[in-house]
Amino acid sequence: MGTSKDDQSPVSCSSNAELDSITAALDIIGDRWSLLVLRGVFRGLHRFSELRDDLGIATNLLTTRLKALVDNDILEKVQYNERPARFEYHLTESGLGLSPVLVSLMQWGDRYRNHGHEPVVLLHSTCGQIIHNITQCPQCLIEVDPTEIKRRVHS
Amino acid sequence: MGTSKDDQSPVSCSSNAELDSITAALDIIGDRWSLLVLRGVFRGLHRFSELRDDLGIATNLLTTRLKALVDNDILEKVQYNERPARFEYHLTESGLGLSPVLVSLMQWGDRYRNHGHEPVVLLHSTCGQIIHNITQCPQCLIEVDPTEIKRRVHS
Repeated sequence: MGTSKDDQSPVSCSSNAELDSITAALDIIGDRWSLLVLRGVFRGLHRFSELRDDLGIATNLLTTRLKALVDNDILEKVQYNERPARFEYHLTESGLGLSPVLVSLMQWGDRYRNHGHEPVVLLHSTCGQIIHNITQCPQCLIEVDPTEIKRRVHS
Repeated sequence: MGTSKDDQSPVSCSSNAELDSITAALDIIGDRWSLLVLRGVFRGLHRFSELRDDLGIATNLLTTRLKALVDNDILEKVQYNERPARFEYHLTESGLGLSPVLVSLMQWGDRYRNHGHEPVVLLHSTCGQIIHNITQCPQCLIEVDPTEIKRRVHS
């Protein structure tokens, strides 16, 4: 009885596979510093000093976040200098796969929680067009309305 | 010196508008119970008793999460019975807008963090086709590669 109910893990719900998938991503980007570091790498910052200077992040915080992102297969270390040994941080395939997550989060915040700040517009670098994150049906070639999404657990 | 560096807010980074937008969404779905409740409503559960029974969530937890989701304009209360007064919880426009966020998070977890569980497949209810979350260029009509995304802050 001394345990706060709020600390209970929601283990008794149905269809935990879906929830596990969602929270796996949230575990990584839910930390604000990790999110900042990740966004920095997406923006083309690959070296420790570049990230530290751009984000204004303390050295120890950057070290722990980079290590966690590498341990979680989101970033990989790539050596660019032998003596002294120097490394850059690049996105793994799994890290690149977070792009739609970050874009959809940003798009939602810009649309529904824009408290007067200027929205960040994302452009397709090859044509300059503004791009959007959508859930698409490859057959109907349309953006699917949220009310038209059905779930099925593979067996 | 007594304050943990880890508690510092990352305020000194550039381009905070983008970060603010991302974290506005994370503030809502980052809480595991809120995420569960939200997913329940997306799945068609609208009444307190339906959500409580399906999620196995304690009454007080469900009450606080529903109130927060209503206060944050993600859900709205719709009266379905007069005496006694009974309400259902429905997604607002802003709540429906979270659909691509949830889909992209789930898709990433299913693809990169599937520890043996069966993936949840999302289907377009009108045609039965499996649907995907993508970042699309409306001019090129292709899924944009993450390396081809440029950022521009509107002025």
